[in-house]
Amino acid sequence: MNKSFKQMNENELKSLISDLEKEYVDIKAKKLELNMARGKPNFDQLDLSMDMLNVINSQSQLVKNMDYRNYGILDGIDEAKELFAELLDVTTDEITVFGNSSLNIMFDQISRGYTHGYLGEKPWCQEDEVKFLCPVPGYDRHFAITEHFGIKMIPVPLLEDGPDMDMVEEYVNNDKSVKGIWCVPQYSNPSGVTYSLDVVKRFASLKPAAKDFRIFWDNAYCLHHLYNDKQDHVANIIQLCKENDNADIVFEFCSTSKVTFPGSGVAALACSIDNKKDVLKHMTVQSIGHDKINQLRHVEYFKNAEGVKKHMEKQADVLRPKFEMVEKILSEQLSGLDIGTWSHPLGGYFISFNALNGCAKDIIEACKQAGAVLTNAGATYPYGNDPEDSNIRIAPSYPSVDELKQAALLFALCVKLVSAKKILKEKSC
Amino acid sequence: MNKSFKQMNENELKSLISDLEKEYVDIKAKKLELNMARGKPNFDQLDLSMDMLNVINSQSQLVKNMDYRNYGILDGIDEAKELFAELLDVTTDEITVFGNSSLNIMFDQISRGYTHGYLGEKPWCQEDEVKFLCPVPGYDRHFAITEHFGIKMIPVPLLEDGPDMDMVEEYVNNDKSVKGIWCVPQYSNPSGVTYSLDVVKRFASLKPAAKDFRIFWDNAYCLHHLYNDKQDHVANIIQLCKENDNADIVFEFCSTSKVTFPGSGVAALACSIDNKKDVLKHMTVQSIGHDKINQLRHVEYFKNAEGVKKHMEKQADVLRPKFEMVEKILSEQLSGLDIGTWSHPLGGYFISFNALNGCAKDIIEACKQAGAVLTNAGATYPYGNDPEDSNIRIAPSYPSVDELKQAALLFALCVKLVSAKKILKEKSC
Repeated sequence: MNKSFKQMNENELKSLISDLEKEYVDIKAKKLELNMARGKPNFDQLDLSMDMLNVINSQSQLVKNMDYRNYGILDGIDEAKELFAELLDVTTDEITVFGNSSLNIMFDQISRGYTHGYLGEKPWCQEDEVKFLCPVPGYDRHFAITEHFGIKMIPVPLLEDGPDMDMVEEYVNNDKSVKGIWCVPQYSNPSGVTYSLDVVKRFASLKPAAKDFRIFWDNAYCLHHLYNDKQDHVANIIQLCKENDNADIVFEFCSTSKVTFPGSGVAALACSIDNKKDVLKHMTVQSIGHDKINQLRHVEYFKNAEGVKKHMEKQADVLRPKFEMVEKILSEQLSGLDIGTWSHPLGGYFISFNALNGCAKDIIEACKQAGAVLTNAGATYPYGNDPEDSNIRIAPSYPSVDELKQAALLFALCVKLVSAKKILKEKSC
Repeated sequence: MNKSFKQMNENELKSLISDLEKEYVDIKAKKLELNMARGKPNFDQLDLSMDMLNVINSQSQLVKNMDYRNYGILDGIDEAKELFAELLDVTTDEITVFGNSSLNIMFDQISRGYTHGYLGEKPWCQEDEVKFLCPVPGYDRHFAITEHFGIKMIPVPLLEDGPDMDMVEEYVNNDKSVKGIWCVPQYSNPSGVTYSLDVVKRFASLKPAAKDFRIFWDNAYCLHHLYNDKQDHVANIIQLCKENDNADIVFEFCSTSKVTFPGSGVAALACSIDNKKDVLKHMTVQSIGHDKINQLRHVEYFKNAEGVKKHMEKQADVLRPKFEMVEKILSEQLSGLDIGTWSHPLGGYFISFNALNGCAKDIIEACKQAGAVLTNAGATYPYGNDPEDSNIRIAPSYPSVDELKQAALLFALCVKLVSAKKILKEKSC
């Protein structure tokens, strides 16, 4: 059955579609309830961190250089700053530790640009137009933030080694209204791409037309390898920017959301000392400090970066079979059919599938009708608009391996069915 | 020595000042290090909640109607909504539970008004002028937020039973640029005033010129009584607003910051269902939910409102002797001298002292020189500007009773010294 759909004649296609439709009816009858929509850890991953809930108790010493139970310490406890500094290979002066959500840090940073501006520049709400570059496919929650603030989003193709840097340089170095770019530089969401050293160097040597242009470097998956022997490691942008006298150009975000508990983790911002001062100037009005006990809970559990890395190997042991199951099914079911390509990530949370143009919506709808929820079509593009209606984000983390097998089989069936109909329609025209 | 300073002649005053200066030099030599600046619980209050750190551990059942460790539940877990609903006497639909900081909720609410506007009204950043009413003396961190967003602050006198409501009605019902008022309705910061039923009713029946006018009802001290037999209980503004077809007019804030741990508590917003929907519309872009494990930790520790109230009696047992010590010293040292008045609060975190006009700054500076830090002069007024230079906020919670005795004696001495010099100067002119 490994004949390219495109080489089939109309009768072959009709017969194929009839077979696939029967299969679809059978699967639908099973009334599956599967979800591959969000990059959400499953309970077996969460169980890995349960012992962290024992490290702080009523006997714990919570008074260090100050009482960690009380108000204060706006930029995070020293121990947590040290841990994140080690993980991101920056200095503790460049780290600010927050509450449970790096998304919230990003939102607040955009909001600060909008209401007050960065380092004395004009607030964006006073500008006629503000633009952000959005490598695509990308992360829907990033796009939601910029859309929320009325920022015009410009899609930039994400290539094999990072965003199209010719286009990025053209925009950033010439257009004053371009104030930022969203990046997931390692195991990108959804395509799993890690930016090459050359790309990171080109980012670090940008000469932005706008003084308040910032790279929003969401290093969400910096620790999230699937394999011990094959790993990507994106270059240290904070360091490279400093070397290029461009220290203020970047905000780097990360968190323990997919390390310990998504709802009860700790998030951090790495940035230049001047940017940090600017951030703290706003934070001092906004809060009297984040949850220091939870910061300490994380540090005492992991001890250091090595502890985090060991823990992430356990996470990988849970996730790897899920990714491998999806890739196995896709390969078995779709190889040679010329109806889709997919990513083979070494880490992160997603497999990115590119269907024939004009098929993504229909595939996702067909999956949904048969009980498997995928991320909405278009979600990986600004304004939910994938101009080719092609990209589908598959999130294999939440279902069990068995469920994933069923979900991937259903998905492959829907890809075949929708693609065959599409090809037939084109042939008939 | 209980002769009114104002009735002394110049020679009496000179001799008095000479004696007081000797006393001051002696105290200064002790090199005290005391702090009555912030409403910050002491470690003995924090110790009261240490057992809360045992209620969640690796054996805890954290999967309820969903997995509380994971992403999700933007408005807080049901159990926490129920607890806050009981404490504030509202429905769970009217409650949103956040992270550790009610200040952060207030900041974000102001920020949302500024960037997007409430319930479809124009964002404040597009208005020529936005004004907030600020009952004075009031809370410096409230004023810092409105100042941060360039909102013009109008001081309104805080009387014995609440803000001057004639003035509030005059402004709110006629001036479209008045978008809000800051209120600490029970045991107000710093004067300890609780708004009367009549005042709350007048708030609930406001007919604002601006559709997006909101009462920022910071019920920070709703649980913070000093006595079991003498307590204030401010009326339920959410209920009264509903009865007046004014449900959308108020945001009520509270937290467990001064119940459990200031850095690791849980904060909540109570508001109309329409307001809540509006808030969630923004939050869904900002975050994937707050720390649900910490919310559960609080609920499992307290069980219900009765549990919280019992706990607050223990807090009161620690705080009461501190307030009584300060009041005792002030009474012994200053009664009858005609150089200051002070509040006698039944709860909250502050004693408000009104010195002779033009003396507050000098008293605070004299205390500082001798080792006792007080809140900055003027801090209880918008823009740090107390036009009479009279109000001083005393925060007795942080020092021990012994330290407070020394601090209050030093404070009383500085009040006498500065006042005597001031009166002498006036007599000499």
